Amino acid sequence: MNTHSTPRLYHVALSPFCRKVRLVLAEKRIDVELVEERWWEPGSEILRRNPAGKIPVLRLDGRLWSESQAIVEYLDEAYPNPPLMPLMPAERHEVRRLCAWFDDKFNTEVTRPILSERVWKKVMNAGYPDSRLVKSGLRAVKDHMDYLGHLLEHRKWLGGNMLTLADFTAAAHLSCLDYISDVDWDRSAALRDWYATIKSRPAFRNLLVDQVPGFAPAPHYAQLDF
Amino acid sequence: MNTHSTPRLYHVALSPFCRKVRLVLAEKRIDVELVEERWWEPGSEILRRNPAGKIPVLRLDGRLWSESQAIVEYLDEAYPNPPLMPLMPAERHEVRRLCAWFDDKFNTEVTRPILSERVWKKVMNAGYPDSRLVKSGLRAVKDHMDYLGHLLEHRKWLGGNMLTLADFTAAAHLSCLDYISDVDWDRSAALRDWYATIKSRPAFRNLLVDQVPGFAPAPHYAQLDF
Repeated sequence: MNTHSTPRLYHVALSPFCRKVRLVLAEKRIDVELVEERWWEPGSEILRRNPAGKIPVLRLDGRLWSESQAIVEYLDEAYPNPPLMPLMPAERHEVRRLCAWFDDKFNTEVTRPILSERVWKKVMNAGYPDSRLVKSGLRAVKDHMDYLGHLLEHRKWLGGNMLTLADFTAAAHLSCLDYISDVDWDRSAALRDWYATIKSRPAFRNLLVDQVPGFAPAPHYAQLDF
Repeated sequence: MNTHSTPRLYHVALSPFCRKVRLVLAEKRIDVELVEERWWEPGSEILRRNPAGKIPVLRLDGRLWSESQAIVEYLDEAYPNPPLMPLMPAERHEVRRLCAWFDDKFNTEVTRPILSERVWKKVMNAGYPDSRLVKSGLRAVKDHMDYLGHLLEHRKWLGGNMLTLADFTAAAHLSCLDYISDVDWDRSAALRDWYATIKSRPAFRNLLVDQVPGFAPAPHYAQLDF
């Protein structure tokens, strides 16, 4: 195996899209080298790796793969053990609906405004946080938690009876917020229990040691009993 | 069959996400009743049909389905004839990467700014168009067309050798812009040929008769030889 084929993930630590891929890789026991991709800095080669200019980019099986949802679906098809998608079309739809819920709606209303203002503006040296955006994200997260709590009162996992891509997508977003302490886990016991269960999986370990310079994680971030 | 099980698509005519589902339904020869969902008006019941508050929503097989990409993947799995996804994981990834290219990047940079400013603000009575956003969309569309043209010089269809969900996703976005005459088809012969081919499919017919009150389609919109 030459060095060009070493599996590698170009990522940044607090991106929910990168975390989603990291969690699925770890769950499938695929070891990758993590390389920080500071795509906003001059000289970044992101466009050579992905014409869409987005992270994560995965180097695996002799190719570069982009788009987080397309990557995790590929991983589930090419590395089917353990399976992270149900077999029946209707159940598969529900998993994909929830992945999109987080990657589109939750990201637009919660993850992106909060992380952009609290983290990325500082990291990228792009001005002061807009507190209205942070507040709007913190208001929106409550409705989302109520909806997720409601789902989890009737289901063992978010998408149904098995652990799926939907759980890892949700956990990827929530773990970014949890790092900067913006999740009120007391709001829903069902959601808290679900998060405690997924957080204790071996796949979660390498997320829990993330350290973003300038941002110490919340004290409970790495605790399994939070 | 009672009336509750009549297949129905809640949609609006110039939404690329709704058009994507319409094209796939038609390609699979699944007849649905189209119901306009004016989700921005008081009294809209969109939240009862989809807690994410988004269109399209499809009523089919006794259930409501939401999220356009999750819907078309469901349709391809539950109604596999004709297949609109390749069989191999790497090729499936490429189709999903391109679907996300359009539904995320192309939509953010092109479809949404242009349609929001030129169409939705008028339809929703939400103020005057911001010409800077329109111009930014018109600038961005050029790079996208070059990229698509480049892909199509090496491939018969966008995702590879077969017609897939990627072609219908791309056509859904481009057809909305074409309706209001914002596609410079002279920019890429390969892209123009591809669009002429997909536009002449029977599945495209019911898009070509769309009429949005207050917005007459561009003269060439319904012409197969444009």
